Amino acid sequence: MCELLGMNANVPTDICFSFSGLLQRGGNTGPHRDGWGIVFYNDNGYQIFKESLSSSTSLLAKMLPTMSIKSKCIISHVRQANVGEVNLENTHPFVRELFGFHCSFAHNGQLKGYDKLLTGSYYPVGSTDSEFVFCHLLNKLKNNFKKMPKNYSLLARLLYNSLTSVEAFGVSNVLMTINSYTFAYCSNNLYWITRKHPFGQASLIDDDIEIDFKSETKTGDVVSIIATKPLTDNESWNKMTPGQMLVFFNGKIVYNFLKND
Amino acid sequence: MCELLGMNANVPTDICFSFSGLLQRGGNTGPHRDGWGIVFYNDNGYQIFKESLSSSTSLLAKMLPTMSIKSKCIISHVRQANVGEVNLENTHPFVRELFGFHCSFAHNGQLKGYDKLLTGSYYPVGSTDSEFVFCHLLNKLKNNFKKMPKNYSLLARLLYNSLTSVEAFGVSNVLMTINSYTFAYCSNNLYWITRKHPFGQASLIDDDIEIDFKSETKTGDVVSIIATKPLTDNESWNKMTPGQMLVFFNGKIVYNFLKND
Repeated sequence: MCELLGMNANVPTDICFSFSGLLQRGGNTGPHRDGWGIVFYNDNGYQIFKESLSSSTSLLAKMLPTMSIKSKCIISHVRQANVGEVNLENTHPFVRELFGFHCSFAHNGQLKGYDKLLTGSYYPVGSTDSEFVFCHLLNKLKNNFKKMPKNYSLLARLLYNSLTSVEAFGVSNVLMTINSYTFAYCSNNLYWITRKHPFGQASLIDDDIEIDFKSETKTGDVVSIIATKPLTDNESWNKMTPGQMLVFFNGKIVYNFLKND
Repeated sequence: MCELLGMNANVPTDICFSFSGLLQRGGNTGPHRDGWGIVFYNDNGYQIFKESLSSSTSLLAKMLPTMSIKSKCIISHVRQANVGEVNLENTHPFVRELFGFHCSFAHNGQLKGYDKLLTGSYYPVGSTDSEFVFCHLLNKLKNNFKKMPKNYSLLARLLYNSLTSVEAFGVSNVLMTINSYTFAYCSNNLYWITRKHPFGQASLIDDDIEIDFKSETKTGDVVSIIATKPLTDNESWNKMTPGQMLVFFNGKIVYNFLKND
């Protein structure tokens, strides 16, 4: 299995603190030593950093927090391989274009028989179930819309229905981004927290790091973090329910889909 | 305008030396301060690093050579913007998937009226002429093949014809990679050099760096470098002719297309 981390905020925000916690789970406090990756969005552009090795010992991963890249929308992943070899093409997140927007995808789960899913003009490059599902979801969206819709409710509904269908093949927790929207689908393990005024202090579970968000933020800032497991031990994280999908935009939940909705 | 750098080799090779020269042209010895990027292939996977700022002062660009990433196929670019704003989505190289392979593209030129070109299901994300042309070329390939051909001669011929057509809109020097093949199209400025046994010494034009390739290579290594302008002052670089396209694979030229071929 793997671990997911996402951030959605209303202002460009540094994910350094949470990312430092996730990195430790990539081979140190967790067994996910088969690769790591992170995507930072900046409007329609993005930067992606990935390696098919342990994040806890990676020079690049250690260097990234010192660069203080700020973004309103980030997803990250540490991998423990089950389907697909340990190599770069199988390392999450995956990025593909849809209607002129770079979409990205990270996945935690294990699927069987998923190759029945249609991927249309989106060809998987690697051999993971995860990238296959991503191609399938993009193909669904491409077939059902002519361009990126202005109102995301129909797109979110279609994505939700498709993600519940994918669960027929096994456990499938997902973080996906489209145009600064973060779609978080919970099959069994996904937590979230929204930090806003008044900001407090937090301490990482996986590393000896504390932060005082008061000194890092302004009053109007709203920052949501989504993760496979809570990253801090002194904050109250919300556990998503199986079959739930939350959609975040500008740091806030804008859609909430529940099983049998 | 911009500057291009490509490497094609028969063994994973460190581009650190040539990249250090290009970086200086991004704001120091050259005026290309509007962004830089580099793609390293590793089989079907890749790593991409890019920023929409000057490479000569970038922390990330400075750090990259210390990581000694080795690859058989690399393209890089420093940008001086003409068409399109200075931002990440307009920063080269661009990467898109074709038939299950990540293709990348970097461009030096200035085009007018290029939006008549068809891009099919490949939507440009940014606003550069370069990304538009890349989408057009991929669309051409997608429409003319059902899957990635085993023999690349037909694909290279189609690409060559398409690239000569693009020149109707202006100057267009191109570096494009598909599955470890490097396609280098010269509109006016593109040089190449192939280094092989017996390897010699080289000194950069743009930085005070010398290298003895003998100590960095094995006897059978073959490494070709393609660049907008020669990067070293004590080697003999080959100038491509206008309308020429060279295709490199495993470090060697495998196809050579000339004007009126």
